[in-house]
Amino acid sequence: MENKTIKSRLTKLRAAMEKEGVDFYLIPTDDYHGSEYVADHFKVREYFSNFTGDNATLVVSQQEAGLWTDGRFFIQAEDELKGTGVTLFRMGEEGVPTLPEYLVKNAKKGNTVAFDGRCMDAATGLGLEKLLTKKGVKICYEMDLGGQLWTDRPALPCHEIFVLSDDLVGKSLSAKVADVRKQIKKAGASAFLLSKLDDIMWLLNIRGLDIECNPVALSYLYLTMDEIVLFVQSKEVNKKTARYFKDNGVSLKEYDEILPYLNDLSVKGKIFLDRRCVNYALYKAASSKAELVEQNNPTELMKAIKNATELKHLKDVYIRDSAALTKFIYWVKKNVGKREITEMSAAAHLDHLREKLDGFIELSFPTISGYGANAAMMHYAATPDHDAKVKAKGMLLVDSGGTYFGGTTDVTRTIVVGEITEQMKEHFSKVAAGCLQLSNARFLYGCTGRNLDILAREPLWELGIDYKCGTGHGVGYILNVHEGPQNIRWRYTGNMVEAVLEEGMIVSDEPGVYIEGEYGIRTENIILVRKAEKNGDGQFMKFDQLTYAPIDREALDKKYLTEKDVERINAYHKEVYKKISPYLTIDEKEWLKDVTRPL
Amino acid sequence: MENKTIKSRLTKLRAAMEKEGVDFYLIPTDDYHGSEYVADHFKVREYFSNFTGDNATLVVSQQEAGLWTDGRFFIQAEDELKGTGVTLFRMGEEGVPTLPEYLVKNAKKGNTVAFDGRCMDAATGLGLEKLLTKKGVKICYEMDLGGQLWTDRPALPCHEIFVLSDDLVGKSLSAKVADVRKQIKKAGASAFLLSKLDDIMWLLNIRGLDIECNPVALSYLYLTMDEIVLFVQSKEVNKKTARYFKDNGVSLKEYDEILPYLNDLSVKGKIFLDRRCVNYALYKAASSKAELVEQNNPTELMKAIKNATELKHLKDVYIRDSAALTKFIYWVKKNVGKREITEMSAAAHLDHLREKLDGFIELSFPTISGYGANAAMMHYAATPDHDAKVKAKGMLLVDSGGTYFGGTTDVTRTIVVGEITEQMKEHFSKVAAGCLQLSNARFLYGCTGRNLDILAREPLWELGIDYKCGTGHGVGYILNVHEGPQNIRWRYTGNMVEAVLEEGMIVSDEPGVYIEGEYGIRTENIILVRKAEKNGDGQFMKFDQLTYAPIDREALDKKYLTEKDVERINAYHKEVYKKISPYLTIDEKEWLKDVTRPL
Repeated sequence: MENKTIKSRLTKLRAAMEKEGVDFYLIPTDDYHGSEYVADHFKVREYFSNFTGDNATLVVSQQEAGLWTDGRFFIQAEDELKGTGVTLFRMGEEGVPTLPEYLVKNAKKGNTVAFDGRCMDAATGLGLEKLLTKKGVKICYEMDLGGQLWTDRPALPCHEIFVLSDDLVGKSLSAKVADVRKQIKKAGASAFLLSKLDDIMWLLNIRGLDIECNPVALSYLYLTMDEIVLFVQSKEVNKKTARYFKDNGVSLKEYDEILPYLNDLSVKGKIFLDRRCVNYALYKAASSKAELVEQNNPTELMKAIKNATELKHLKDVYIRDSAALTKFIYWVKKNVGKREITEMSAAAHLDHLREKLDGFIELSFPTISGYGANAAMMHYAATPDHDAKVKAKGMLLVDSGGTYFGGTTDVTRTIVVGEITEQMKEHFSKVAAGCLQLSNARFLYGCTGRNLDILAREPLWELGIDYKCGTGHGVGYILNVHEGPQNIRWRYTGNMVEAVLEEGMIVSDEPGVYIEGEYGIRTENIILVRKAEKNGDGQFMKFDQLTYAPIDREALDKKYLTEKDVERINAYHKEVYKKISPYLTIDEKEWLKDVTRPL
Repeated sequence: MENKTIKSRLTKLRAAMEKEGVDFYLIPTDDYHGSEYVADHFKVREYFSNFTGDNATLVVSQQEAGLWTDGRFFIQAEDELKGTGVTLFRMGEEGVPTLPEYLVKNAKKGNTVAFDGRCMDAATGLGLEKLLTKKGVKICYEMDLGGQLWTDRPALPCHEIFVLSDDLVGKSLSAKVADVRKQIKKAGASAFLLSKLDDIMWLLNIRGLDIECNPVALSYLYLTMDEIVLFVQSKEVNKKTARYFKDNGVSLKEYDEILPYLNDLSVKGKIFLDRRCVNYALYKAASSKAELVEQNNPTELMKAIKNATELKHLKDVYIRDSAALTKFIYWVKKNVGKREITEMSAAAHLDHLREKLDGFIELSFPTISGYGANAAMMHYAATPDHDAKVKAKGMLLVDSGGTYFGGTTDVTRTIVVGEITEQMKEHFSKVAAGCLQLSNARFLYGCTGRNLDILAREPLWELGIDYKCGTGHGVGYILNVHEGPQNIRWRYTGNMVEAVLEEGMIVSDEPGVYIEGEYGIRTENIILVRKAEKNGDGQFMKFDQLTYAPIDREALDKKYLTEKDVERINAYHKEVYKKISPYLTIDEKEWLKDVTRPL
């Protein structure tokens, strides 16, 4: 069946392209900051293609419209592109040209390729620029053709910014800015252009609510040795916040003034920026004004190393959040088979338990609740149309977290809801073994996630099983649930960063087994990097647990565990009971006592 | 006390420097190939400084003479430099300038820094060149001043080259050359300059005896698409070998003709070379003739991946070599405390057992035999003056190996010779646990030594103990006991190479504990990388053991071992008995049965 809506939109786009002399118009997925979640305002690609997935670029010419997306989305894209006339280009498949290859092949000398350069990261834009310029193809990156044609385009998200007290963040705006200025100076630059939203929030000790599940405000920051210029929608700044900015020497400009500001700027010295986190339009503006110093944002590492105040709050938040999850597990166990529970209703129950906690701000990501075979899809999201009933059989995987005044959490438990097979028990036991083997590691300072990853993976590799993702990611403090630079992985590809594990970093520890069409198992704790003893052989490091929720005893079998695994599980469960039981009802407490008893 | 010999030599050197207009004369340690062992002919630095250690550079000016060496040699250097007037520069210590820093500081514009460019690797030479040229200091690298003044300089080593049969190496010279030519072509070059001796030996299926413990001949190779030019001392080539070269299209030139040859060369296209393994003089000659393609020698990876024929011979050689070591351990155990055994006499006994084996060529390195506290020094070498008596107390560490027609071995065992402490037992048990945890690993294809190192190290890191070296190195086939590119280490510094572990590579697995002034423990096996199952999650890999010698049961205590460790030790010991007992006398066999019985 024809999708007349999309076809008519594409017709209008092509007419506009013709008028503007554009031969190829590209619509990427990103907002202006490469955020993990994209607000409705930025969903131009969806508007012109009907494809709702997280990763794709639409390319439109008079002859053709093509959509490039990756393997996670092939099935969904086929479905959603039906009747739109848009061709699916399956990224990574043999014989399928990459988007740059396609453009190089099809764009002719003198042609113009246009896109909104704010929606493309600088590295990608510079790559395209190099290829196309060589072929004599012009690039026009200051054209939001798609956005202009979108008649009922949602407004930019706009929510009040709030300020976090120094009691909560442990370091004042001015102290942080002073540290960053030192780094800028050290790098030989005189100014710093920052557009990574969580870094701006961290640096200014503010938060916002403009991006789903990321407590950030749409903003840019331009920092010199004597100025702090913040670009935000003025409607987001109430009087109190305005006062805070004034007191701290932060001057405000409108969010959309960043490009004109850069274009009018006269810069003495070099501008420091991080190509990975700046959009192409910004990069071009900055590089036309001054020599660039391109290094990782200094805020990234500073933000990742949690200070004593942050850690104090984090520990408390993780225990209360773990208690909510424990209550949820109890609720599932007691109700499954007795009342109707679906993936979404289970998630809603858990979300509600979190919302009731003191200091709750929002979920740290949409709760993943996957029953049976659905849990084998790592990024599964139930929808009202696809919302499996949780029956008294198999397992329910729940990956969830919240952001509170006091920290951001992320935790996964796989809950046995009925009969399970021996193989499930074996896989579940090995996942638990790997998770705790990693969190119990001692290692020398200097290790990165590449050195440690095998500790989580080895029990599964011994069975010839792998999980096709990293073992762990950094987690923000009252911020994004995914942050760098640290991570735990065995292999680094593309522009992945490998960072030494520093005291005060927190990282997830989440091995899993995913059997397509059958089931998925994941156990995820967040662990904190700590110093252990220092001696002549060096500074040793260890992890502290932050997450304390029971690992389902019904799926743990000693015959799949080493003595040491059993010791570790028992020790962990002992702590779970000790820390979580004070938050439980008598019935819940009794149950927890039972499910955390030694194996 | 004054060292008049050295002082007089330095006086002569300074006079020659003045005559030649040289302000600073550098004498590095290397031979022309960066060999691990340096023949007497090349010991110019020792001749002018009295320092005999493995790593140092002597710098002489009219005002000063300085010797730069690293932490392993500080004590020895202090001792040997006494009375020579040569100042020790302790590399790595705070406030001590590096050699380049020293030269940059002290050499004035217009000064000349000279050295024999054949004794310095290209990377170091180019680094110096860059720094000094910037300061207006001239470099003269074609001057062997030191060598010319050395009146009784030993001749170049010169031993007959021998040819290995295809039955022994599994791949003919012409097949190997064809493969290398493909790589050269692929890299866009038309010629290949190779000066790494073991790579030349591997490629031409020849061996020599010019370097102690390395079965290699001093040589260079210049390979084009239609020529194979080998530079060797003609006295090393007997008639049979000359015939072999002729039959295989290898033309011969004298060893010392390489530089004139390169200088006279007219090259069409680019020359492929590996900066890490070419000396500075060669690099300069090649780069003056053609554009260079600088990549790792393609021979390096090919040589590292042992073929089926090599593996067949290797397995046999490792069992016979392991049997010799096992006999030695029996001999030590039976004789210690009853007859005089010293570190050197023990080594001599073991060397003798190896020499008796079929196909023995030479030791693969000088046997390390360290008793008690001496074993805590990782590179200990007993000498007639320092040759400890092995008493019936503590442990004797023996690290040894041989090169045979059929393979090169390397193995370490720490032998209990009397009473040992609980701490020794704990450390010994953990070392064995780490060694076998690594060799029992399953891992996905793509892993490097960086991913796996922690498996060997973790039992020690848990105790807050580290060994300050890598866990493993590659081993040659009838070649050098140390070869790349593979290795097992957790950290890579400088120009260390990290390589994916490929099927057919062999690598050592040698964790240890070194307690200064007390004792040293190391257990070293050589393991072979093999493919395990391949499934939807990828190609899994595993190791096979090559080394089978008992791990001293007297120092293994179950209380320091996990169940899994015990299983692994028992399984290993079962194989040791099975494979080694056929080579033993009745008494030895009975003993081996006992010491390999399950824990």
